[in-house]
Amino acid sequence: MSKFYTVSATLIKAAALAFTLVFTQSANAKPLNIDVGEFTLDNGMKVVVIPDHRAPVVTHMVWYKVGAADEENGKSGIAHFLEHLLFKGTKKIASGEFSKIVARNGGQDNAFTHLDYTGYFQRISKDRLEMVMEMEADRMQNLILTDKDIKTERDVVKEERRTRTDNKPSRLLSEQMSAALYTAHPYGIPIIGWMAEVAKLTRQDALEFYRKYYTPSNAILVVAGDVTAGQVKELAQKHYGVLKNTATPGPRVRTKEPKPIVERRIIMRDKRVSSPYVMREYLAPSYGTAKGNEALALDILTEILGSGTTSRMYKKLVVKDKVAVSTGSWYSGDQMDYGTFGFYAVPASGGDLNGLEKHIDAVIGDVLANGVSQQELDRARKVLQAETVYLLDSQSSLARVFGRALVVGMSVDDVINWDDRLNSVTVQDIKNAAAKVLQIRRSVTGFLMKPQSTKKTETN
Amino acid sequence: MSKFYTVSATLIKAAALAFTLVFTQSANAKPLNIDVGEFTLDNGMKVVVIPDHRAPVVTHMVWYKVGAADEENGKSGIAHFLEHLLFKGTKKIASGEFSKIVARNGGQDNAFTHLDYTGYFQRISKDRLEMVMEMEADRMQNLILTDKDIKTERDVVKEERRTRTDNKPSRLLSEQMSAALYTAHPYGIPIIGWMAEVAKLTRQDALEFYRKYYTPSNAILVVAGDVTAGQVKELAQKHYGVLKNTATPGPRVRTKEPKPIVERRIIMRDKRVSSPYVMREYLAPSYGTAKGNEALALDILTEILGSGTTSRMYKKLVVKDKVAVSTGSWYSGDQMDYGTFGFYAVPASGGDLNGLEKHIDAVIGDVLANGVSQQELDRARKVLQAETVYLLDSQSSLARVFGRALVVGMSVDDVINWDDRLNSVTVQDIKNAAAKVLQIRRSVTGFLMKPQSTKKTETN
Repeated sequence: MSKFYTVSATLIKAAALAFTLVFTQSANAKPLNIDVGEFTLDNGMKVVVIPDHRAPVVTHMVWYKVGAADEENGKSGIAHFLEHLLFKGTKKIASGEFSKIVARNGGQDNAFTHLDYTGYFQRISKDRLEMVMEMEADRMQNLILTDKDIKTERDVVKEERRTRTDNKPSRLLSEQMSAALYTAHPYGIPIIGWMAEVAKLTRQDALEFYRKYYTPSNAILVVAGDVTAGQVKELAQKHYGVLKNTATPGPRVRTKEPKPIVERRIIMRDKRVSSPYVMREYLAPSYGTAKGNEALALDILTEILGSGTTSRMYKKLVVKDKVAVSTGSWYSGDQMDYGTFGFYAVPASGGDLNGLEKHIDAVIGDVLANGVSQQELDRARKVLQAETVYLLDSQSSLARVFGRALVVGMSVDDVINWDDRLNSVTVQDIKNAAAKVLQIRRSVTGFLMKPQSTKKTETN
Repeated sequence: MSKFYTVSATLIKAAALAFTLVFTQSANAKPLNIDVGEFTLDNGMKVVVIPDHRAPVVTHMVWYKVGAADEENGKSGIAHFLEHLLFKGTKKIASGEFSKIVARNGGQDNAFTHLDYTGYFQRISKDRLEMVMEMEADRMQNLILTDKDIKTERDVVKEERRTRTDNKPSRLLSEQMSAALYTAHPYGIPIIGWMAEVAKLTRQDALEFYRKYYTPSNAILVVAGDVTAGQVKELAQKHYGVLKNTATPGPRVRTKEPKPIVERRIIMRDKRVSSPYVMREYLAPSYGTAKGNEALALDILTEILGSGTTSRMYKKLVVKDKVAVSTGSWYSGDQMDYGTFGFYAVPASGGDLNGLEKHIDAVIGDVLANGVSQQELDRARKVLQAETVYLLDSQSSLARVFGRALVVGMSVDDVINWDDRLNSVTVQDIKNAAAKVLQIRRSVTGFLMKPQSTKKTETN
């Protein structure tokens, strides 16, 4: 059984360049005419239906309004661990059979855990929608966990951490940068959890978390595909609507990050590093907390500064100054409480990271002093609007975009109007957002390097 | 009513130089012949009696095994806030009268909150011991808090935070360095709390914390002064022994800090800075977690490296190289889970902190490569043993040393034998401890600076 994470902010940058090329090619695709259906069952479970009649398949997703940022002290990783455990059994489904049943019926299934949410989905032919609903509703309330399940799956998660984090210096650096960026807010804690805490998670921890958060009123159902809202409503009422709420999770209020007041720097030396780089990450508002056009402006700004070969960073650092072989930026605005805005650059030839950083700072300094041009804004906006088209073109992306927006507190209209709202962003909005966010005291700078040759004990 | 904290690790260094001079002068004082009495009441409350018949006074302290590191997510500052609130009323004592009654009886009282403990004490003539015991036992269980008490005292604490932390760049830097040093363990959270969290603490938060932790089995009574163990036992049984336990706090197991893997740097620029400095702090074992002679070796090492004008740091940076006007080091080993080992230096003339840091690194590099000499070890040990004599010379220090040791899990014997155990430390122990602790990836380096003249928005 495979699992995946939503890409984290610090990984987005790695995909950014390739992604830009792809979606600009698909910029001429026609947007779907989305007629999103939306209703709430009597038990409080929200339902969103996104008709997509291009093929006789459906994407069925249940999103829970709970993620890694809702974990208790010392229990990091429990949200993600529980996500794994949801693939164990119930009275009706034997342990480990869930995904096999989906597969035998020609479908695919998976799940993901992020800071603010946990989601489960199946992609399957439309005549099996009721089947997966029944199964998903069943495991919302009837999970059975044996001590053996816990032990086995905890080992799986520990191995996942070893493979995906501990064996990857770049992931470790990202983890340390997040830990430094957030001093009080739980976004600083890794989703997969700190190893020592994961190793101690118990059956009781998992069941407590499950009972506290897995209840219809804390879930959102998203169905995209070859169905009507009416059909989904009938099925959803039958399988989810009959469930009683077993818990009442409180409002999702997390502690506020203290005002950022210091520049932070993280230097990671590791013998496994093949390609050193410098990365800078700023604490930013998210779509949920931004004022006015701030978040939209940051999405456009990152496009201008760091997306693709026509970006300012690429043209300056790679083409003109020849100090970097690759560079980019990102804005992760789709989190509840905070977003991050970041840059990275890989030096040209085993190069000096301090020097490279000065080049990045020059690009940032220029935008702070002079803002961006109307032409740059117009172009970036077009690219982003094309990206939307690309997203809409995939049924699972579509379901995911709406699910993620709703689970972090935005509305269907927020998603639908995003393109239009981009049109209202001005060059002044961008200059203001840059001035607010791109302050060194809001940032963490990371250096990923090989160990110094004289310090052989630096890594192990 | 005044309150104080135990000096934090990062403040100790400021006092180190002056302190060394004082205690070396008193090195010829005779040690007290300590005959510590120790027993446990039926309800589990531990009692330690330290006879000191030099004057007809007593120091009466109650230590609770709870501190800031035991707070829940988002409730930082509650341990300290509750400490303030203990000076409000009970049925017997009107709100705010506690300290006045002590003062009217010729005594002094105060309290302190640290990471691992919270303590209350009175120093008073011996015939009033029973009186303060009665009062202290009363407020262990019968605290009454009104909404007005909460509002008033929360404002006091917020003002305390403003005055002692937010208005002091050096304190803010220390706070940020701790936040960076600890990624998972709660020692990274300031004792006084983050302002936004303190501002939200409620009466319910305070009462929940009080009910969870303020119970006889979670308290240690320390009485030093002109009394016998027998007298204290009789009084303690009468006033504390009759209390029923109202809670059963679990074992004090906190999450482990993940293995430190990156060098961290904090740059604080603030226009209020009059004297810039560089500071380096390493994650170290504490007396509670050290293996063998590690903690003792670190106490000796800090003496050799950074204590006083004969220390290596002073002789090299101030006298020889003339790059610093002051310098020093510290080891804070008296915490439950981790200690810190640190250095600081103030540059000679508005000087370059990067350059100064290289001088510190040279001193560290030398001890890592070559260790220390037997002569240095012998001298440092003498100084530390003299310091003990000085501490023993003060009744309140005496009570405090024993109380602190016991509340973090050490024994009376650990304290009494500390001097002797120092004799077993070898130069190899010191070299080993240095190699284990003084690794750059275990450290945070802080720069305190004025803002760069070109960046006027850097502070506000």
